[in-house]
Amino acid sequence: MATSSVEPVGASETAFDHECDVLVVGAGAAGAAAAYESAAAGADVLVLERSSGPGGTSAQSGGELYLGGGTRVQKACGFDDSPDDMYAFLLAALGPHADAEKLRLYCDGSVEHFEWFRARGVPFKESLFDAPGWMPYTDDGLMWLGENAWPYNTIARPVPRGHRPEAPMFAGGILMEKLIAAAAEAGAVTHEDTYATNLVVDGGRVVGVVARRFAETVAYRARKGVVLTAGGFVDNEEMLADHAPVLLGHDKISDGTSDGSGIRMASALGAATRRMGSVEIALTANPAVVCRGMLVDGLGRRFINEDVYPGLYSHRAVQHQPGPYWAIIDETGHDEIAEADMWGVRPKHAAETLAELEESLGLPPGSLEATVETYNRFAERGEDPYFHKDPRWLRPLKGPFAAIDPADGFFGAGRHGAGTGAGGFTLGGLDTTVDGEVRDVSGRPIPGLYAAGRTAAGIHGEGYISGTSLGDGTFFGRRAGRAAAQNP
Amino acid sequence: MATSSVEPVGASETAFDHECDVLVVGAGAAGAAAAYESAAAGADVLVLERSSGPGGTSAQSGGELYLGGGTRVQKACGFDDSPDDMYAFLLAALGPHADAEKLRLYCDGSVEHFEWFRARGVPFKESLFDAPGWMPYTDDGLMWLGENAWPYNTIARPVPRGHRPEAPMFAGGILMEKLIAAAAEAGAVTHEDTYATNLVVDGGRVVGVVARRFAETVAYRARKGVVLTAGGFVDNEEMLADHAPVLLGHDKISDGTSDGSGIRMASALGAATRRMGSVEIALTANPAVVCRGMLVDGLGRRFINEDVYPGLYSHRAVQHQPGPYWAIIDETGHDEIAEADMWGVRPKHAAETLAELEESLGLPPGSLEATVETYNRFAERGEDPYFHKDPRWLRPLKGPFAAIDPADGFFGAGRHGAGTGAGGFTLGGLDTTVDGEVRDVSGRPIPGLYAAGRTAAGIHGEGYISGTSLGDGTFFGRRAGRAAAQNP
Repeated sequence: MATSSVEPVGASETAFDHECDVLVVGAGAAGAAAAYESAAAGADVLVLERSSGPGGTSAQSGGELYLGGGTRVQKACGFDDSPDDMYAFLLAALGPHADAEKLRLYCDGSVEHFEWFRARGVPFKESLFDAPGWMPYTDDGLMWLGENAWPYNTIARPVPRGHRPEAPMFAGGILMEKLIAAAAEAGAVTHEDTYATNLVVDGGRVVGVVARRFAETVAYRARKGVVLTAGGFVDNEEMLADHAPVLLGHDKISDGTSDGSGIRMASALGAATRRMGSVEIALTANPAVVCRGMLVDGLGRRFINEDVYPGLYSHRAVQHQPGPYWAIIDETGHDEIAEADMWGVRPKHAAETLAELEESLGLPPGSLEATVETYNRFAERGEDPYFHKDPRWLRPLKGPFAAIDPADGFFGAGRHGAGTGAGGFTLGGLDTTVDGEVRDVSGRPIPGLYAAGRTAAGIHGEGYISGTSLGDGTFFGRRAGRAAAQNP
Repeated sequence: MATSSVEPVGASETAFDHECDVLVVGAGAAGAAAAYESAAAGADVLVLERSSGPGGTSAQSGGELYLGGGTRVQKACGFDDSPDDMYAFLLAALGPHADAEKLRLYCDGSVEHFEWFRARGVPFKESLFDAPGWMPYTDDGLMWLGENAWPYNTIARPVPRGHRPEAPMFAGGILMEKLIAAAAEAGAVTHEDTYATNLVVDGGRVVGVVARRFAETVAYRARKGVVLTAGGFVDNEEMLADHAPVLLGHDKISDGTSDGSGIRMASALGAATRRMGSVEIALTANPAVVCRGMLVDGLGRRFINEDVYPGLYSHRAVQHQPGPYWAIIDETGHDEIAEADMWGVRPKHAAETLAELEESLGLPPGSLEATVETYNRFAERGEDPYFHKDPRWLRPLKGPFAAIDPADGFFGAGRHGAGTGAGGFTLGGLDTTVDGEVRDVSGRPIPGLYAAGRTAAGIHGEGYISGTSLGDGTFFGRRAGRAAAQNP
């Protein structure tokens, strides 16, 4: 249970300090997209941001946007794509149980959404980073996110759809700089250091919010609607315990303000939630190492094709394989990897033979030997009958060998810090229509209340890949902003 | 989204037809326990049951009750137990993330709770069924539920705690017959064919319910409190899609009335929920077969110690191993199994060699051979370094071999019917205090509102074993009934 009071307050008991048409709560990617569209549609827009500057978790992210269907970048890199291929891939990769209705709209509208980013000044370099990775160490504008790996390459035409604003490594900063500027230019005004705490209601309709600014209470009236884009709840330990305990104790991919306040304010009013247990959880193994060697579990056994986008096996690994996990590589593979692609990590375990390595890692005797023997036997023929790793990455492994603990990976190494080798954020949230209207428990939209981004449940089922949270947050954030502006 | 209207109605708009102190919604195990205790404490108790007879899903269940700490049955069978051992086992078996606060009370009060069942006339035979199984085919009163298998035997003293009312196979009928009779004898009156649809509120306090009886609307006033014991939501496809999609398409372990109405009525009032994605999901492999042979995944690989209680590997298997699954056994093992313990299932695949069996099952060539070779090599020494199966069940397997598809198991064979080889029910529900008070989203008890059984979140984390749902439903149902009776 979470214990701060989020009960709605009545309009008749509220003295409003400010008034606008559309009030957006939270200036991350979804909030900026909603604010821009609302303002562009002629609404008088106010944005409340609890931090001293805009951007939220989005500004600290890698900035990937999952887009496709035939964007300018895809074409320039020589790829044909279609909304149907994009849909088929995402239905599998974000599944099982992805949201088919939202996903269909998302894929059909993706080229337009890409052009919207370009028109807001977000730069995309027309070049491909062509290797498995969490995030390129280059400024390439396009990357693979599992589309060319088994089984996804059997489900849809393999086309890369990871679009990245032009920046080395973390590109969320440049993305948010452009979106915030666009919203401001369209006329949206942001009040910073202002934390929304309660919705204001008038006869079943949401008409504003009460907020805290330092020691002060400030009330906002919204004539047309309130759009909640306040992020997820990975920073709220009580909510994690109640709804997504798998994330307890792991790194938090967040700017520290994902406290679930948007979800809680609406739930107190009887709003429905959806998929509150769905999470992104990343095992911070280094894909450059893993794809050239193998990833094994605590019994020395492979469990995935190591060339697939790491987001696609992380969830399964962290929740359900017996840990710990080890990335195993030989000297030949290690020497192939670009220094920048090692993210500063050095193997702590090295050995001439697999028997020595098993002992050093505490694996059952003979387990790693059996795994590598089978792997090598098929790799010589360019085959992987168990997991179908692409022949490009298949080569018999020969000593000397090294093992890397994902807990020494790039998250564990400093950026986030819990040191478990895994980190993530929440995907569940308010149950919304495709126009961002928040539904009550009986399935009816609550008048005047909208949500987008991780305050809402989006396109995801049990799966996640990079770029789909910024992607659906901005896409449905735009729709919510437009719908709120048009609300009579 | 679920779409029938469950919004609360105001007391001033309600013409009450009936009045009582404590109104219990649902006459399953939790409801009967709550009604008994409320009535025994002197309250005037009404029970609403939507079906034409009481008992609910509980009456159709196996009737197992997870009890221990030194019960009369345990002592008669020669076992010493303690609340601390019981707690340590359940914390692991129902975890990760079991509810430590509720679990501690549950274990400390377990001997008293067992005696409460006996005093209500529930019979327990003082004998042990000493083999892995979902449910004994005998009328033995005690069974193992994983306590003597790895890793649980390393966590707590291995003591059997599966208590069963005296009946062959499904013992839920006799259990519910006794509890319903006890509640009636204590003075609780049941209205059948009466389906509660909305809570009635008066200034933030729950004061009754509106119900439907055939074409009629009937309103009930509850002076002290309403106790929601209306079951979970496995029969509500929209709620499953929103909260526990892993169960979609599988068999439903339910009497068909687990539509989540109790959870929805309270949520519409701003009640908090907890762990809505937690489920019991049983892979209906036959434990008598599995423990004498092996259970393999779609890559021909073992993934558990096959002598553990099947509830303890089912969840992991159904959600995260590559299916299908196969129970593999040799002729020697098959001939050992009592006819009644085969549950009417015959192997559909048989072969002299493992290579033939691999082909017939569509497993990668050599995969099953490798698994059996490793298994046999260690089994000859009475060892299982991978999964620690007890030596009692370790024996090298020799042809001829047979394979059984769990979809041909006893659920698929008729009782439930979706035929996927898996079935289950929901564990998540309303967020309650240890006295059954329902909390709102801000963590405060909602005056006059209580819940227990699968309408509430109980002692479970991500794990489940038999007897813990009837167990915590009755234990916390009793506490909720007492608390409601004492409510001023």
